Amino acid sequence: MGRIIECIPNFSEGRNKEVIEKIMDKLRGKEGVKLLDYSSDSDHNRTVVTFIGSPEGVEKAIIDFAETVYENIDMTKHDGGHPRMGALDVVPFVPVSGVTMEECIELANRVGKTIGERFNVSVYLYEDAAKSSDRQNLANVRKGQYEGFFEKIKKEDWKPDYGPCEMNVKSGCTAVGARVPLVAFNVNLGTNNIEIANNIAKSVRHIGGGLRFVKAMGVKLEDRDIAQVSMNLVNYEKTAVYRAFEMVKMEAKRYGVPVVGSEIIGLVPMAALIQSAEYYLQVENFSMEQVLEKRIWE
Amino acid sequence: MGRIIECIPNFSEGRNKEVIEKIMDKLRGKEGVKLLDYSSDSDHNRTVVTFIGSPEGVEKAIIDFAETVYENIDMTKHDGGHPRMGALDVVPFVPVSGVTMEECIELANRVGKTIGERFNVSVYLYEDAAKSSDRQNLANVRKGQYEGFFEKIKKEDWKPDYGPCEMNVKSGCTAVGARVPLVAFNVNLGTNNIEIANNIAKSVRHIGGGLRFVKAMGVKLEDRDIAQVSMNLVNYEKTAVYRAFEMVKMEAKRYGVPVVGSEIIGLVPMAALIQSAEYYLQVENFSMEQVLEKRIWE
Repeated sequence: MGRIIECIPNFSEGRNKEVIEKIMDKLRGKEGVKLLDYSSDSDHNRTVVTFIGSPEGVEKAIIDFAETVYENIDMTKHDGGHPRMGALDVVPFVPVSGVTMEECIELANRVGKTIGERFNVSVYLYEDAAKSSDRQNLANVRKGQYEGFFEKIKKEDWKPDYGPCEMNVKSGCTAVGARVPLVAFNVNLGTNNIEIANNIAKSVRHIGGGLRFVKAMGVKLEDRDIAQVSMNLVNYEKTAVYRAFEMVKMEAKRYGVPVVGSEIIGLVPMAALIQSAEYYLQVENFSMEQVLEKRIWE
Repeated sequence: MGRIIECIPNFSEGRNKEVIEKIMDKLRGKEGVKLLDYSSDSDHNRTVVTFIGSPEGVEKAIIDFAETVYENIDMTKHDGGHPRMGALDVVPFVPVSGVTMEECIELANRVGKTIGERFNVSVYLYEDAAKSSDRQNLANVRKGQYEGFFEKIKKEDWKPDYGPCEMNVKSGCTAVGARVPLVAFNVNLGTNNIEIANNIAKSVRHIGGGLRFVKAMGVKLEDRDIAQVSMNLVNYEKTAVYRAFEMVKMEAKRYGVPVVGSEIIGLVPMAALIQSAEYYLQVENFSMEQVLEKRIWE
């Protein structure tokens, strides 16, 4: 399997297919990287990309990719429902195999420096790559969005980590980070009462006094006429999937509401699910080295 | 990924480290094969080995391995809690990648023939390699164990497939087979009563009226002073791990005995555990394509 980093860049174009494909071509047929997935949303006017590769492959590919994004997207003409601060909005690096978080942080720094110097775009480091605690949370970094950064960038507290201290009008700013894999996990309730889903979400999530690495909100699934607790598990190693699931079930009991199902959105690391199997099957002394595929590919 | 066969030989020594390592050395640094795992159990007095390789590599390695096993283990001095009929007790071949079951059956035949001719050990083909339906089930083949084979081997119905029709006193007999991947899964009970473990095993296993692809027996774990339901799940796709586990729990309730833990012995296919996570987390519409590592390995 070797050394693998996952990169999930988000760029601010979700409507113009020609531009999107021109940008995506930068990740196709490139040595050392593999494009796993990309999806464009026209309401958000944004494209979310997932690719993996060796540290060297990912570093080279993301720079080429960034160049094409900056060339083809003009933020003065951008509108869309999703918060964004730049053409290449966020670039998180995730350690997947044989790579430490420290290496991803170093990679974020090298890529941030290159983007700043070569493309004259201001870069903010976030999550585990953040150089101060108020830059860890992406929502906090991006607050004010593209339009607000013309002022924000001049504040002493919001001096960019790399690149110019003045706004690049065409490209905006880019957030570059390192983080653990995120699991998007939703639990479906046997009720259409959104208030119940919201209350459960509040109890389960970190800011409400719940689990440390859970973000959650209530969502109504109109087509199925049920309510859902929609969660982002931002560190599945420390706050396991089964723990979030059992806590939702526990809180739902308070309302006499059953859990009717769940869904995992997008990609999920093998370990996040195996950890849950271990818990429920009460497996003693299990090691990931016992997973056949892991041993074959190592 | 290439053409890969998995081989999981079990030999009848789980206590003498010197002998175990001497045998294991035959799989180290061999061209065309890779030793993935081995674990010795002193109660069972048995070692379970897993290695993979090209069909040619596996064939060559298993013959060298067999020779060292027969040289170093004397069945007249063997005792242990696990059923066994010979020094090299079982040799299953499992198609992993780019190899058909038919090729594994042919390999079982070639290896069986060589063992019979070169080492003068009687060989029984089992599972998918069996030449008659009553030899498919390993438990059926091994019935009577080493001690019983002095008589069994003389019966017309139990003429060996390869090798002599008389018992090799030192080495016993060897079962060589081809099969789909097997999950060795043991459930630990909160009692030291072996009768209870045996009764649960009888209810859960196929021949007792239980689950189609479960083989089970009661085992006493002397060092922990508890009883265990030791299972082989011979087709985890059709009889899932969680189903066997829940059924053991259900039967244990009959005796007021709790399940205190479980163990997975050796290697396990990723899908066998993810299937259980899906069940307990009630995940809807999950696809193995969502597993990050699978996308990477593909």
